[in-house]
Amino acid sequence: MTDERSTFLLDETQIPTQWYNIVPDLPEPPPPPLHPGTHEPVGPDDLAPLFPQALIEQEMTTERWVDIPGGVLDVYRIWRPSPLVRARRLEKLLDTPAKIYFKYEGVSPAGSHKPNTAVPQAWYNHAEGVQRLTTETGAGQWGTSLAFATAQYGMDCEVWQVRSSYDQKPARRTMMEIYGATLHASPSELTEAGRGILAATPDSPGSLGIAISEAVEAAVGREDTRYALGSVLNHVLLHQTVIGEEALRQLEMAGDTPDVLVGCTGGGSNFGGLIFPFLREKLAGRMDPTIRCVEPASCPTLTRGEYRYDFGDAVGMTPLMKMHTLGHGFVPDPIHAGGLRYHGMAPLVSHVYELGLAEAESIGQVECFTAALMFARTQGIVPAPEPTHAIAAAIREAQKCKEEGVSRTILTALCGHGHLDMGAYESFLAGRMTDLDLSDETIREAMAGVPTL
Amino acid sequence: MTDERSTFLLDETQIPTQWYNIVPDLPEPPPPPLHPGTHEPVGPDDLAPLFPQALIEQEMTTERWVDIPGGVLDVYRIWRPSPLVRARRLEKLLDTPAKIYFKYEGVSPAGSHKPNTAVPQAWYNHAEGVQRLTTETGAGQWGTSLAFATAQYGMDCEVWQVRSSYDQKPARRTMMEIYGATLHASPSELTEAGRGILAATPDSPGSLGIAISEAVEAAVGREDTRYALGSVLNHVLLHQTVIGEEALRQLEMAGDTPDVLVGCTGGGSNFGGLIFPFLREKLAGRMDPTIRCVEPASCPTLTRGEYRYDFGDAVGMTPLMKMHTLGHGFVPDPIHAGGLRYHGMAPLVSHVYELGLAEAESIGQVECFTAALMFARTQGIVPAPEPTHAIAAAIREAQKCKEEGVSRTILTALCGHGHLDMGAYESFLAGRMTDLDLSDETIREAMAGVPTL
Repeated sequence: MTDERSTFLLDETQIPTQWYNIVPDLPEPPPPPLHPGTHEPVGPDDLAPLFPQALIEQEMTTERWVDIPGGVLDVYRIWRPSPLVRARRLEKLLDTPAKIYFKYEGVSPAGSHKPNTAVPQAWYNHAEGVQRLTTETGAGQWGTSLAFATAQYGMDCEVWQVRSSYDQKPARRTMMEIYGATLHASPSELTEAGRGILAATPDSPGSLGIAISEAVEAAVGREDTRYALGSVLNHVLLHQTVIGEEALRQLEMAGDTPDVLVGCTGGGSNFGGLIFPFLREKLAGRMDPTIRCVEPASCPTLTRGEYRYDFGDAVGMTPLMKMHTLGHGFVPDPIHAGGLRYHGMAPLVSHVYELGLAEAESIGQVECFTAALMFARTQGIVPAPEPTHAIAAAIREAQKCKEEGVSRTILTALCGHGHLDMGAYESFLAGRMTDLDLSDETIREAMAGVPTL
Repeated sequence: MTDERSTFLLDETQIPTQWYNIVPDLPEPPPPPLHPGTHEPVGPDDLAPLFPQALIEQEMTTERWVDIPGGVLDVYRIWRPSPLVRARRLEKLLDTPAKIYFKYEGVSPAGSHKPNTAVPQAWYNHAEGVQRLTTETGAGQWGTSLAFATAQYGMDCEVWQVRSSYDQKPARRTMMEIYGATLHASPSELTEAGRGILAATPDSPGSLGIAISEAVEAAVGREDTRYALGSVLNHVLLHQTVIGEEALRQLEMAGDTPDVLVGCTGGGSNFGGLIFPFLREKLAGRMDPTIRCVEPASCPTLTRGEYRYDFGDAVGMTPLMKMHTLGHGFVPDPIHAGGLRYHGMAPLVSHVYELGLAEAESIGQVECFTAALMFARTQGIVPAPEPTHAIAAAIREAQKCKEEGVSRTILTALCGHGHLDMGAYESFLAGRMTDLDLSDETIREAMAGVPTL
């Protein structure tokens, strides 16, 4: 029976004590990453200049469960478990028979789901004696999260922030500095990768791919320094499964099982974190939800990209990963959902999509911000630009339920709040936001740079 | 026995169902507000152009408990009950034997404690047929809260925002507009009060007092419009007691009783909301905490003001209230804790202070932001400028405990997050923030304008 409450809380003693790895439960294993020079599968040694041993093991593990260390749980306790909320006020506005639940990750100190992986990444590096982490950030959510996490263990943090975001979001820079991080606008003069881009395009707005190249370059070869990535990789998605594990339990408290799961996909970590525990249940035949990825129409990796081996960064330093990509040279228009501006997609999410276990749709930003205003005026929370896509997709589904006269249980993740993204709302409210047209030609050009294996 | 957890949560079914009115429990009643013309105690009719009947009754009631309407509880449920957190990581950094608890009100949609009263104020007005509310806002917290609350009941909201804040915080304006409010910089050309100030001081940075005059003027005489105040008045403090009532229960869950309560005081609503339920317990002999108000050194109402009848606004339209005041013409330096920039103090808090039931101290902003950085880097949350004062005071007390080698239980309220106040942190991190020197002469000059009764 459905519970009458709107918010489903767990106690800190109920934080999951293990992360869930979906790899052993998939019908076939995902294609391995390849060395950029030899095109052979990468081994642990190839990754050692970038990551600590424990994270390399997690990247490659086929174990179903990975224990969460006590030193990580101690910090998770600051904000986890996060609430699961039934959006009753939004349902009422939509006059829909559907039930809409959202798992709210904006309660973390950084305001998004990113600390779920930033904290263990900092912890494992610290445990292996690393003193400094480098990283990139797009919208600023990931950089803020890593800055917060490194502060917890007394480490240094150096962040390359995509130039367009660096200029548009001084508040984000300040927040990272509050946690003690050092910031650089990317492309920067500090790395060979940055200098190369600036020589070719002096006014480059930057991209996540470029910033990754810079942060990777700044980490390799420094004994006390490693690199941290906020999405895409297997170990990142692994850490994010705390979202889905908690949501499973909370939805059970609410007396419901999901019919439709929708999540926004940029690099894929929020999506994977929410979805994988439910996908396990689906593969085991214990539930049968439709699983749907939602991506921005201006960066439509799954719906318009190709499933190919491509680099994770812009200049070809990282291993080649089999994923849906628009080409590693793709520089998306500076839409406001900065965190979704990535040319590729997590290999695990790409693999799940190729296996037919998830479907995908893309939505333009005007529809997303229209949905966000409906959400804010009913549920109170002002969403970050990224999850406005998830909300728009949930609303589409709820309206379909109304048209069909059926009640379905919809679950999504509200992966962060928008307090530091008011610039996007300002341009929307002033009527200056439009949907950008991405031509096939632009995508073809970017794909031309992808290596043929 | 002290609980080992750090976060103490209540379920939405445990939201208090009554607000607590401290008036009947005080050793003597507070002096009544006086009519600005006749200097006689104001009656309900005097307030009718400004407030709905239900709120006027609450302003004057001597009943100990007031039922919270179901339509208010429905909206409270969006974020209440708020968590009580033991700041174990801060305690560790300070190496103190003290226990530091904070009640965190930043989980509300507006990010502060203000929706606790904005929601019932909107509800009662709506119930009596009012279609539009006017108000003022300093830092923007109150305007955001009322904008959120009016959106819940389909009402219009018009906000006069203090000019200095309006210019410095475009993100705040956007957030109010997301909820559907209409914004004006104060002083504005839209009211007689505003035009008068602009004629005398064209580049006036504004003040809460001036903005109140404008919002009041815009409400009186319009049948469909009333005015809403975010602090100072009895009914506002009444609504805020949900904070203290929940905290009482949560501290009991934690197995502790408070030795010291510290709260930041601007208009007094956050302080009263946290403290009054504990003061009731103290007056009844069930506990005996020290109760301490903390105010900014640049707006030291309790520590350097006088206890006199003064106007609540800048131009003398409101009733005269017996309170600690720096003079209604006092325009504080534009320090960053905008919400604490008010010339007066809630009459109920002033009365409690005069009765010797609370003590007061003032702290400069550099110490406050230093404390805020320690807090953010341990507990994760970036505090709003206002509660940095409460945190600085809690840290002072914890350090005293260390010096004395005694463990005391400290409780404070973290009344909001600072996501929309990054400008203040930016100036602090850049070393541009200094402590302002407020001369006795400045206070004397402002006090000269206070009427002699």
